[in-house]
Amino acid sequence: MVKIAIDMMGGDEAPDIVLEAVSKAVNDFKDLEVILFGNEEQCTLRHPRIEFRHCSEEIAMDDEPVRAIKRKKDSSMARMAEAVKNGEAAGCVSAGNTGALMSAGLFIVGRIKGVARPALVVTLPTTSGKGFVFMDVGANADAKAEHLLQYAQLGHIYAQKFRRIANPSIGLLNIGTEAAKGNSLTKNAYHLMSEQSEFNFAGNVEAKSLMEDAADVVVTDGYTGNMILKNLEGTAKSIGKMFKETLLSSFKNKIAGLLIKKDLQEVQTKMDYAEYGGSVLLGLDGIVVKAHGSSSAKAFYSAIRQAKIAVEERIVETMRETVGE
Amino acid sequence: MVKIAIDMMGGDEAPDIVLEAVSKAVNDFKDLEVILFGNEEQCTLRHPRIEFRHCSEEIAMDDEPVRAIKRKKDSSMARMAEAVKNGEAAGCVSAGNTGALMSAGLFIVGRIKGVARPALVVTLPTTSGKGFVFMDVGANADAKAEHLLQYAQLGHIYAQKFRRIANPSIGLLNIGTEAAKGNSLTKNAYHLMSEQSEFNFAGNVEAKSLMEDAADVVVTDGYTGNMILKNLEGTAKSIGKMFKETLLSSFKNKIAGLLIKKDLQEVQTKMDYAEYGGSVLLGLDGIVVKAHGSSSAKAFYSAIRQAKIAVEERIVETMRETVGE
Repeated sequence: MVKIAIDMMGGDEAPDIVLEAVSKAVNDFKDLEVILFGNEEQCTLRHPRIEFRHCSEEIAMDDEPVRAIKRKKDSSMARMAEAVKNGEAAGCVSAGNTGALMSAGLFIVGRIKGVARPALVVTLPTTSGKGFVFMDVGANADAKAEHLLQYAQLGHIYAQKFRRIANPSIGLLNIGTEAAKGNSLTKNAYHLMSEQSEFNFAGNVEAKSLMEDAADVVVTDGYTGNMILKNLEGTAKSIGKMFKETLLSSFKNKIAGLLIKKDLQEVQTKMDYAEYGGSVLLGLDGIVVKAHGSSSAKAFYSAIRQAKIAVEERIVETMRETVGE
Repeated sequence: MVKIAIDMMGGDEAPDIVLEAVSKAVNDFKDLEVILFGNEEQCTLRHPRIEFRHCSEEIAMDDEPVRAIKRKKDSSMARMAEAVKNGEAAGCVSAGNTGALMSAGLFIVGRIKGVARPALVVTLPTTSGKGFVFMDVGANADAKAEHLLQYAQLGHIYAQKFRRIANPSIGLLNIGTEAAKGNSLTKNAYHLMSEQSEFNFAGNVEAKSLMEDAADVVVTDGYTGNMILKNLEGTAKSIGKMFKETLLSSFKNKIAGLLIKKDLQEVQTKMDYAEYGGSVLLGLDGIVVKAHGSSSAKAFYSAIRQAKIAVEERIVETMRETVGE
């Protein structure tokens, strides 16, 4: 049995999509147990493997993260994190306020001893459909070279355990492929990564080749990572919008649109990174998964599955043994 | 008369595309004079308003920038920059090694007194077709908040003079729109920009809204700017590739492709940032324009026109008076 704590109240479409996803997950996985945290008046779900716990508060999407976690002790998110901290659950999932979830991870679940800073990890699509692990996408805006080195160590384990790549290649996001390229942070990080032999360092990776399977894991600081993540999303959306407008701009084009509709949807699915699961906060002493923002039930479901796999693959234990003190 | 110095030897397709562009430019603009620097054996162009100067060396795309400029004194790029320095030409254009051109700008043309660091500026497309000014895209990988403030001042003048926007909005690229968001650099820069009244500060701009006319000018450090520039290019290219593959994947889709071919090409043209001219190195005591990398004759031609407009609009003089000491 794997026990996962779930925040019923987080996300724009909560609790409906959360309940839909949890219902599907307990039916699909016979070895899954869930502790559901939220407002009991809104909980319509009854199942022998779901335990419900009422919480009197919830954290809003625009709450100030650290303050929300410190003050709203009886919020569904804080209590979900408590359940991981005290060992009742092996992992937790929320679609709520990302900053608050990171604070809950940091202040309630806590870091693995020896990990300087946790990193937020996503799996992003590539044109081949393979995808790559990208981190840090915003846990820490400022980072030092030693932090990037540790992100790489964490990402190495994540790719091995979660994506089942035996010897994942780890790239450093940079503005050129040559060793001497970059700002002072990436130059120092390049040096540190070249010197170690724990993981397969693939050198610098440029932002233009991210979608072309440049490396299995790409590491950067949280400021740059968050920027690139949003830029990828925004650019794909803007280009998609222009194509759509073109396909609606004349009768002739509408016919063309009908002809390729199904295949275009397939491309869109391939590019939809909710398909690859949620974001994981790595380096914590427990599994904390963030289901993607405007989460659908499908995205929340894959985040639950992701948390379950992470527990089964003993990702936290492995990180504690290899990266921790 | 406007006199522009041109590097005949720079770029992958040199000197052919350079000669084609220069020929068109002197025919289109009756008030344009050109000094052409290069290997005389390869120069097939004769025109009363073109003066040719033979150079015995050229700078390769993979030459180490600073060393190349310091050692290859008789290269077409170094001598072109000398012509600006000594006042023979009012501006210069090259499609060669970007780093070497920045070094030529910095070490030969020189900075405006009072400008701490020059910035590399591009105009990027937006889905509306309006476009925006983006800087620094790589002149300086590391920057301080005061540098970003000065980039904003330079960008303000550039947008006024070159894009003819009377009161351009200036945004700071950041990972959130709120004032407290970002790394230490952007937090400090936000503070400095909020306090001044020289330009219209539009606050933080997120990478996801860059293509949606978020601001007339968007300012960032050279590391982030270069990263975003390459990511925009790479993402657009990868998505384009996937669409193309879809349109070739079946007979039905090929027919659809034929129906929308012309309109898709229009979208592509709108997204082609070579259409918006080259990159300009702002903050130097003369106009230095970099025609885009895999330059076509059309792109080189628009870079020449851009240099000419910059001279006519007295961009350097205005920067000297307002930003300089």
